[in-house]
Amino acid sequence: MPSYHAPVDDTVFVLQRVLGVGRRNALPGFDDLAPDVIEAVLRQAARFCEVELQPLNATGDRQGCRRADDGTVAMPDGFREAYARYREGGWTSLSAATEWGGQGLPVVLATAVDEYVIAANLSFAMIPGLAAGAVRTLERHGTPEQRAQWLPKLVAGTWTATMNLTEPQCGTDLGLVRSKAVPDGGDGRYRLSGEKIFISGGEHDLSENILHLVLARIEGAPAGTRGLSLFAVPKRLPGADGAPDVRNAVLCTALEHKMGIHANPTCAMAYDGAVGWLVGEPHRGLAAMFTMMNEARLGVALQGLALADAAYQVALAYARERRQGRAPGQMAGEGPDPIVAHPDVRRMLMAIRSFTISARALILSTALVADEARTGPAEDRAAAEERLALLTPVVKGVLTDRGFEATVLAQQVLGGHGYIADHGLEQFVRDARIAMLYEGTNGIQAQDLVVRKLPRDGGRAFAAWTAEAEALRVAAAADPALLDLAGGLEAGLADLAAAADWLSRCGDEAVVAAAATDFMHLFGVVALGAMWVRIAQADRATGGSASPGAGARRHLADFFLCQTMPETALRLARIRAGTGPVVAMPPDAL
Amino acid sequence: MPSYHAPVDDTVFVLQRVLGVGRRNALPGFDDLAPDVIEAVLRQAARFCEVELQPLNATGDRQGCRRADDGTVAMPDGFREAYARYREGGWTSLSAATEWGGQGLPVVLATAVDEYVIAANLSFAMIPGLAAGAVRTLERHGTPEQRAQWLPKLVAGTWTATMNLTEPQCGTDLGLVRSKAVPDGGDGRYRLSGEKIFISGGEHDLSENILHLVLARIEGAPAGTRGLSLFAVPKRLPGADGAPDVRNAVLCTALEHKMGIHANPTCAMAYDGAVGWLVGEPHRGLAAMFTMMNEARLGVALQGLALADAAYQVALAYARERRQGRAPGQMAGEGPDPIVAHPDVRRMLMAIRSFTISARALILSTALVADEARTGPAEDRAAAEERLALLTPVVKGVLTDRGFEATVLAQQVLGGHGYIADHGLEQFVRDARIAMLYEGTNGIQAQDLVVRKLPRDGGRAFAAWTAEAEALRVAAAADPALLDLAGGLEAGLADLAAAADWLSRCGDEAVVAAAATDFMHLFGVVALGAMWVRIAQADRATGGSASPGAGARRHLADFFLCQTMPETALRLARIRAGTGPVVAMPPDAL
Repeated sequence: MPSYHAPVDDTVFVLQRVLGVGRRNALPGFDDLAPDVIEAVLRQAARFCEVELQPLNATGDRQGCRRADDGTVAMPDGFREAYARYREGGWTSLSAATEWGGQGLPVVLATAVDEYVIAANLSFAMIPGLAAGAVRTLERHGTPEQRAQWLPKLVAGTWTATMNLTEPQCGTDLGLVRSKAVPDGGDGRYRLSGEKIFISGGEHDLSENILHLVLARIEGAPAGTRGLSLFAVPKRLPGADGAPDVRNAVLCTALEHKMGIHANPTCAMAYDGAVGWLVGEPHRGLAAMFTMMNEARLGVALQGLALADAAYQVALAYARERRQGRAPGQMAGEGPDPIVAHPDVRRMLMAIRSFTISARALILSTALVADEARTGPAEDRAAAEERLALLTPVVKGVLTDRGFEATVLAQQVLGGHGYIADHGLEQFVRDARIAMLYEGTNGIQAQDLVVRKLPRDGGRAFAAWTAEAEALRVAAAADPALLDLAGGLEAGLADLAAAADWLSRCGDEAVVAAAATDFMHLFGVVALGAMWVRIAQADRATGGSASPGAGARRHLADFFLCQTMPETALRLARIRAGTGPVVAMPPDAL
Repeated sequence: MPSYHAPVDDTVFVLQRVLGVGRRNALPGFDDLAPDVIEAVLRQAARFCEVELQPLNATGDRQGCRRADDGTVAMPDGFREAYARYREGGWTSLSAATEWGGQGLPVVLATAVDEYVIAANLSFAMIPGLAAGAVRTLERHGTPEQRAQWLPKLVAGTWTATMNLTEPQCGTDLGLVRSKAVPDGGDGRYRLSGEKIFISGGEHDLSENILHLVLARIEGAPAGTRGLSLFAVPKRLPGADGAPDVRNAVLCTALEHKMGIHANPTCAMAYDGAVGWLVGEPHRGLAAMFTMMNEARLGVALQGLALADAAYQVALAYARERRQGRAPGQMAGEGPDPIVAHPDVRRMLMAIRSFTISARALILSTALVADEARTGPAEDRAAAEERLALLTPVVKGVLTDRGFEATVLAQQVLGGHGYIADHGLEQFVRDARIAMLYEGTNGIQAQDLVVRKLPRDGGRAFAAWTAEAEALRVAAAADPALLDLAGGLEAGLADLAAAADWLSRCGDEAVVAAAATDFMHLFGVVALGAMWVRIAQADRATGGSASPGAGARRHLADFFLCQTMPETALRLARIRAGTGPVVAMPPDAL
């Protein structure tokens, strides 16, 4: 059975030394963030995830969720109790506003905690993760009455929430949504009808109620995405005494059988005149839903990192324990050596670890941008919003693609044993696979990046990001110990600039679309490389190799520089030369 | 539910136009290979695989194998009947010698057929696949009596066979094998005791007997791999009437729960004084087993190709059917367009297809080398053996790594639907994953390549291969229509030569080991690229774009040239610069 140790020291290193969150106490929520507070929250979260959630990960995978004929869904054994303790421990409310009963802590800290929850048990983590997204959506788009009514429930975790977008005929293309809403007595009350599929946590027995956020079309609304409105549809409606004990006309009609995340119910939902309330403006539902979707995309990016780290831990433990053959060179011992002494095995482990350390820095730095966008000084918010919008598809697409590959590599370290369920690696691979698909496939992230985010406002957000990375490179180049790393970043930035320039000048939508995925990954590698430079700087600032882990981080930074950074040249070559055959290929000839 | 159409036209194209198997009728078995015979065999195989085997693939995955308390194992519903028809159809005997009841057809044709069997149902295909490997091993290493006794049974498929190498404490490092053999009355008869794990098809109800080929140590034999001998241990021994009705002391003690290939029983086996017969010389068991292992490695390589093609077919059908969004450029239609019109989706499909077409050419050309090594003119056999030994780890490692990635890409084409069991893609991903792990992990293939195969005899086989590829390049460069492709191959060959040169001169075993995987993939990409040049030449020779499929192949060749061939530069960069951090990293600091 796999075990998991939340990497608190690694997180603290990123938060304190790399990002300096303690120095940002001008932001609300940060004034309470003394180093010992951060560490205390993380250690408490770590313990909860290791002790309560991780042991349910394998059993939940095996048992799965069960739907009864009446449409109710039972979660796997132990999930109810674990969720109750999660809620009682206050973990649902970390970053929610104190106004609604939250603890008002920064997003960056909640994100750090969420990594552990996901790594310990992704299927479980999805339930509170979606509720947190609903909280943000209602905070921004709900009426004062809606906020007062629902937010305390969601923040306390006594209610959970879902996102209802997909229908059988429409996934990526939400303009095809057919679900209908009919006004029902005014006051924003409607009756909803339609079918939704792929609704994560659409029905379960963890919370007293589930608030479904549903995209539907008000009768007579225009076709396409501009006719969509957002509704909140509670599973149970308030009865005479105000308690939610009247069943609404929404039902889970089936559970999907899927590759992984078996302990999270993926529901087909039927709305049959269900009572719901309009959230935000009529016909502006997609914009409102995007709040939740962008929040969710960062959460999904985190899944790539979290499962990569969880898989790494199992692979490393196995590689230290398992003895096979003689290692070449200095690491050869007496008898069979632990396989970690074999260079090819170490190469695989370093590939994962050089990803996870930099990915953690990247996603926590992105979460910090989210904090700035949310609660920073008013004059900085617009720029932070822009940067967040730019980075979200990159972080989602790149961290989930590379995170999945990392789980596959970790599985490879175990050889044939990696294929056997007992070791848990194959579950990480199956679970990590979903992150590349949901909340917009990674292909859609890439299109969003090159079609919308990159050119927006004349490329302002991208120019600001690259200028900052260039300044980082210049600073690093001034330190002889970081000259190599600065050189690697320089090469990556040059390839990124050349690719962006090429895209902006090519003038052919089809070519840009064909190049999108390579551009997203090029950007992602440079962003991770920039993180390695910041990490190395942080280690230099705190005494170099004397700092715990600094020696290993230096080797990992070198590894990233030599092994991963050269990918940017390949991506650029593909962008420049490889789109022609894609555009030319007649689909019928495939 | 997925459907599968065996790509007979594609296979015929490779066999006839690219490899010219009809022109090789100096080899035994090839004289019967008129074009219409080849096509008739392939069409018959295609029909059998599509109608009999493919429908059992999803049901077998769901149902799995069941072990009873007495150690017997029931295969999923329908497998017994399908195997009986497979056997009766003569599919177990295609390339076996007529002396044992086989049809004496070339390995290259049997390989072409095996692709379809695997694509239709990998779990099923493994059973006859292992028997074919045992046939080769016994042909080469068995006594005349052993051959006369067992080969007709194995060739007829009334018996099947297994490979018993792995033990709990030993996978890659067979020197650690503990299973013991004690002489039992002379005549090469022994009693075997020990535990073996990961035995594919170790117990089932398809055949009247199972012949286990087992590595064990004769009492008093030296430690390490030089003390291993090979034994044949039948599940049932002949009774008074000669029929195999006496249970031998070998038992399946457990089935593994694993990620995929659920319909193939992966057995833990206990030998408790089981009667077995020595095959080949004492203490030379590993060499004998290598015959079977190398055979098996080509079969596993084929799995990478076969599942990639099966997954591609489902993804392509979905991409033509599913309509979402407006495609950019000329392919935009009226309403929502089929997603195949979206460049990023077409890019994914082309990545798979540009792999499968060239991978089929590569593996069939390698099978032809196996034919030359086996039955070619005596003076050519040694060179063919050498080339086969060189190519086997490349083909196994590269086709299974890339084949798995292809199934993941195909799954990505379906978006969230790819994650759902109904579409069958997730099973292809789970099944394809094993091919990177068994018969020697791909890391082991890479070590075998750089440590043994590449430097052997002063690098003679590698030099012969590169000289041939260079001649191909020169010939292609003389045709203006192939100049681009020739240029791509030239760049790849230069990177390959530089990498081989660097490895041969570096003089540090640990560095070579750290670079091995990148070298294997560099070699593989160049080998696939060389196949694209040969394919393009074949299309030119038969009338260019007038030949069916030639237009598409030309776009796919261009795609490979622009998108995949540039990987060689990345691999070379990693080999030259990236091994330092791997060698330097102290395992304890990871």
